[in-house]
Amino acid sequence: MDFMDLHSIRKHLVDFIRSEVHNAGFQKCILGLSGGVDSALVAFLAMEALGNKNLTGILMPYKSSSPESTSDAMLVVQALGIHWEKVEITPMVDAYLTIDPEMDNVRRGNIMARQRMIVLYDISAREKALVLGTSNKTEILLGYGTLFGDTACAINPVGSLYKTEVWAMAEAVGVPKRIIEKKPTADLWEGQTDEGELGFQYRHVDKLLYQMLDKRCSEDELIKQGFEKEFISKVKDLIRRNEFKSRPPLIAKLPMNI
Amino acid sequence: MDFMDLHSIRKHLVDFIRSEVHNAGFQKCILGLSGGVDSALVAFLAMEALGNKNLTGILMPYKSSSPESTSDAMLVVQALGIHWEKVEITPMVDAYLTIDPEMDNVRRGNIMARQRMIVLYDISAREKALVLGTSNKTEILLGYGTLFGDTACAINPVGSLYKTEVWAMAEAVGVPKRIIEKKPTADLWEGQTDEGELGFQYRHVDKLLYQMLDKRCSEDELIKQGFEKEFISKVKDLIRRNEFKSRPPLIAKLPMNI
Repeated sequence: MDFMDLHSIRKHLVDFIRSEVHNAGFQKCILGLSGGVDSALVAFLAMEALGNKNLTGILMPYKSSSPESTSDAMLVVQALGIHWEKVEITPMVDAYLTIDPEMDNVRRGNIMARQRMIVLYDISAREKALVLGTSNKTEILLGYGTLFGDTACAINPVGSLYKTEVWAMAEAVGVPKRIIEKKPTADLWEGQTDEGELGFQYRHVDKLLYQMLDKRCSEDELIKQGFEKEFISKVKDLIRRNEFKSRPPLIAKLPMNI
Repeated sequence: MDFMDLHSIRKHLVDFIRSEVHNAGFQKCILGLSGGVDSALVAFLAMEALGNKNLTGILMPYKSSSPESTSDAMLVVQALGIHWEKVEITPMVDAYLTIDPEMDNVRRGNIMARQRMIVLYDISAREKALVLGTSNKTEILLGYGTLFGDTACAINPVGSLYKTEVWAMAEAVGVPKRIIEKKPTADLWEGQTDEGELGFQYRHVDKLLYQMLDKRCSEDELIKQGFEKEFISKVKDLIRRNEFKSRPPLIAKLPMNI
């Protein structure tokens, strides 16, 4: 992958946050801090754009969330000196889960992600703060996120960065090393990792996505570059099946002949 | 307002539902039934498109919801012979409301609308059914709906119909009269009505919206037609302030010069 110009992109993304927040008539931003690298990077960029008085990080653990997620989120809070709040989502989530105790992990995960959206949007209304999104380009393309859950936001500063680029940018802006180096996880159940669930490595799929989408390589060219046919098909299929998550609801138009 | 050709529009909207549901790879649909006319109309159209075996109505009352909302929703279920389920949102909503008992009605209403989205999307995953939206054009333009709440859906068959047109179409397809004739309400708190909250009548604002947006009349022309200057400003302001609810999250593009 061509190495991006970290310095220009950083400046551009910081300007994006500042101008979009102010254009929308806001002074303050809010974001969910999961303890992961994506939300940490967004917090660092937003801090640069708006200052620590105008940024609030919200921690929203579930009872099964790893204590490390909380302590890593607090590392970000402390490094930046921003406001923060912790709201446990366990009571709301469990009130629903009791209805169907057999529910699978995917449904549970979506419920947790959406419950966090409710908390984040509610606090944003109380604080008159804009909600910052933290989904990266890899997640958006592969649909590794919950519609109306973690993908819900007003503006997303990192949605054009592949995961691999998020790691590089996080290092450049000073995100604590342990957050950059730990295995990415949605932390929706114990032992879950993004790469385990997806079935491939971010570094590997980012290379494929870049060659396939940005460089527009044909399947033959991709195979020549060493990507396996099955892997290419799997990734194409994920992209196709998850496109709907990036679209607003389709509203029926009225017929023309009336 | 020019009177719409109810017959062609009805056929068009029924075809829209059938083709969009099948194109998305689904056979079944699901929608929230509030007891109001918008969701009743969508249920009647979807029944015509897919048949009663492929449609499920979900009732999601809160403890303060009017019992009439439930009985009117059941009128729709019985008229169509569709599947239905009732999920009380009270435990989930109240688990969150206890955190801040001073919360105002707008925040409470948004939490309820979003909690219903969680239930609806969760059941849609279990049933492999597409979520139908029920927001009409008037509500969408004026922003009288909750982002990631009642506006969340895959496809919305009635989003191009003004409320006034929803009433007319509902009559044409046979929605029970008492549902058409009752005062529109989000039923988020006792005594709430849409028109009370908005401060004007749907029939009046629909005429203004039609002249202003569809006929592109100037402010002078609107005033000549008898609309008050203050009313025009209020409506314009609502439209502007709520445009964001129709947009997907804004993702930062990368700078060009790299």
